[in-house]
Amino acid sequence: MSSTIDELETKARAAKTASKKLAHLSTEVKNKALLHIADGLVSSQDEILSANQRDHAAAEASGMSPAMLDRLLLNPSRIAGMAGDVRVVASLSDPVGEVFDMRTMPNGLQIGRKRVPLGVIATIYESRPNVTVDISTLCLKSGNAVILRGGKEAIHSNLALARVVQKSAYEAGIPEGAVQIIESTERAVVDRMLKMNGIIDLIVPRGGAELVRFVASHATMPVLAGGVGVCHTYIDKTAKLNDAVAIVYNAKVQRPTVCNALDTILVHADIADRFLKSIAREFVKAGVEMHCDKATFQILKETPSLKLVPATEQDWGKEFLALTAAVKVVKSLDEALEHIDRYGSGHSEAIVTEEYSAAMRFLDEVDAACVYVNASTRFTDGAQFGLGAEVGISTQKFHARGPLGLKELTSYKWIIFGSGQVRP
Amino acid sequence: MSSTIDELETKARAAKTASKKLAHLSTEVKNKALLHIADGLVSSQDEILSANQRDHAAAEASGMSPAMLDRLLLNPSRIAGMAGDVRVVASLSDPVGEVFDMRTMPNGLQIGRKRVPLGVIATIYESRPNVTVDISTLCLKSGNAVILRGGKEAIHSNLALARVVQKSAYEAGIPEGAVQIIESTERAVVDRMLKMNGIIDLIVPRGGAELVRFVASHATMPVLAGGVGVCHTYIDKTAKLNDAVAIVYNAKVQRPTVCNALDTILVHADIADRFLKSIAREFVKAGVEMHCDKATFQILKETPSLKLVPATEQDWGKEFLALTAAVKVVKSLDEALEHIDRYGSGHSEAIVTEEYSAAMRFLDEVDAACVYVNASTRFTDGAQFGLGAEVGISTQKFHARGPLGLKELTSYKWIIFGSGQVRP
Repeated sequence: MSSTIDELETKARAAKTASKKLAHLSTEVKNKALLHIADGLVSSQDEILSANQRDHAAAEASGMSPAMLDRLLLNPSRIAGMAGDVRVVASLSDPVGEVFDMRTMPNGLQIGRKRVPLGVIATIYESRPNVTVDISTLCLKSGNAVILRGGKEAIHSNLALARVVQKSAYEAGIPEGAVQIIESTERAVVDRMLKMNGIIDLIVPRGGAELVRFVASHATMPVLAGGVGVCHTYIDKTAKLNDAVAIVYNAKVQRPTVCNALDTILVHADIADRFLKSIAREFVKAGVEMHCDKATFQILKETPSLKLVPATEQDWGKEFLALTAAVKVVKSLDEALEHIDRYGSGHSEAIVTEEYSAAMRFLDEVDAACVYVNASTRFTDGAQFGLGAEVGISTQKFHARGPLGLKELTSYKWIIFGSGQVRP
Repeated sequence: MSSTIDELETKARAAKTASKKLAHLSTEVKNKALLHIADGLVSSQDEILSANQRDHAAAEASGMSPAMLDRLLLNPSRIAGMAGDVRVVASLSDPVGEVFDMRTMPNGLQIGRKRVPLGVIATIYESRPNVTVDISTLCLKSGNAVILRGGKEAIHSNLALARVVQKSAYEAGIPEGAVQIIESTERAVVDRMLKMNGIIDLIVPRGGAELVRFVASHATMPVLAGGVGVCHTYIDKTAKLNDAVAIVYNAKVQRPTVCNALDTILVHADIADRFLKSIAREFVKAGVEMHCDKATFQILKETPSLKLVPATEQDWGKEFLALTAAVKVVKSLDEALEHIDRYGSGHSEAIVTEEYSAAMRFLDEVDAACVYVNASTRFTDGAQFGLGAEVGISTQKFHARGPLGLKELTSYKWIIFGSGQVRP
């Protein structure tokens, strides 16, 4: 066995052992530990920043893109932001121990379900070092041990952050071993991790679509993962024009690089002319490029300064993550629903309409994690949905869908209070 | 592509198409269809029995064991039983469409979760033909299309039953294609099924431990599965003797061949002499063989007619599925908890005690799907837990644990009612 695999196995077993104690830890101790971690991040700032400096310099030398370099970068304000996020997690209610569905059966047995942690959660992530703090604190709050395996670009930052989390957590009473970070960045470690289904209870991949797909198809344990967000907004014929423009503009422009940003606009033929001319004026100002079907092209071709490109088949179902929108005129709600069914990725879909039955059909028939009437898809987010912190956004249906909060990192056990009952 | 793989792919695609309509079908139509299936089973009895006759004769000729032959056998009373079970499913409340966790956010967005079917559920099962009816009706009630793949021993019975389910369901308004049965019993079909994660949303293996393990380790989509049930009952020093004897006797003897039957008795040293002598008297009458540690052996060695065998390491953590129990004397609750942690399979575990804090510690610390105080583990069952029908008993933690009802065959989507909100 190579020494890196050895490191993984030793740490994973230690996490499993710690998870058994962590599962029964009081909320008080967990919250105290989280606040101590938040303080530790701020007081260890110099150490963290100097580690981050090493990563950043190496990444710059290797020719990393400015956008990626920015994701990697830490500074005092970002560290303060991380500490603030940890304090938010401390303030959330603890899902562990909640008893629900309690009922008394005719034979007198009292049967209910009690929420428990999953056990050991491993996360495999890419360049953003804040995931180190983010996932480990969400795991601790939900009573789970965690194994962190970050990308090599951020390894020094990740190790420095994990040291602060470990030291602060253990000082405050978290069982030793509950937070593990894998120092090796060899690929073989990931391959081995994905096979450890007796020890790791859940894998959470955090990163690009390729990483997520790789983990989802090779893991032998459950995976909780988001996927591509191909988000449509359909402007129905009865839509309020101002709302439609504001919603589409917000969904496309407010933060185009994230999974809940708009990718495709579908617009009903009856309102296409008015809506498209209005949104095009706004898109010109924002610099949005429109990939248009023929009908849209006809309507918009004279618009001054508009970046207009004829759409190809590849534009439908594409996640742009940029100031680009595909646009299509449809004849009916049915056609919009069919398009979404065919090209959507099951993330976030919206309709803008004033027709009650169109709204209800859209809510009912669209098969996606989040289905909106008259609002921007940009709201798909744990904090916006009232879950507090967010582990990620799931596009799978099993276990949990959409924004994932602390509760989604737990399971339950059935507890049965008897008084001598036997089965007849 | 071979013709059997062709058959699978055609049927799976048809199931996917049907699932989209089925998801929005009213409870009324689904219930009508279920009652029609129940009637159809009774009125098509002759056809079903003659198909079963062929399977039974072939199995007998091949030297199948009497126990297995009995599982395969259908008769008018068993068909009436199946029809009765289908009527129970019709009477259960429909999980689909339930809206929960609805809240209004400060910005006026109304956000909630709506329960939806998973889509297409495939089941791979062994010799019992009733699974054909059982799983397909549970899937229909929960709005899921189903792909059935039974074992070759029961293929004619399964096909006859599926024909009745299909005909009756479609006559009553279930979308054509919602119930698919694979006629080929080639192994290659299973291998291909397990790779169809774009079409099949969930696999439910029903059968022996080997089948379950194979499916769980090779499926590319979520699996909902039970596993081995190694069930312990711990008799604490303060246990009421009569309750302890009645609970252990029931858990071992009432139906020894099922997963929630008792495997190992742990008894506190302080009560071991009285308890073991009492239970041994009952076990002699029932013919239960006791595999005993040294202390137990010393206490029971003089018991007339008792089948007493010294325990070996292999007895701990063994699922006997027979009138056999492993027995161990422990010095403390801690030792019992350690034994269960080491050898249990996370299914059903019980304590018999009158000490409040022992009961609460056991409930808290034992990591199993179902944890009992002062009751028989034989109650681990969907109907006994008030879920109505049961899909199976899960020993996994992800998605659902313990007895699985209709709700566990569903997911949810987030629905958001806006009035023009955009994200600041």
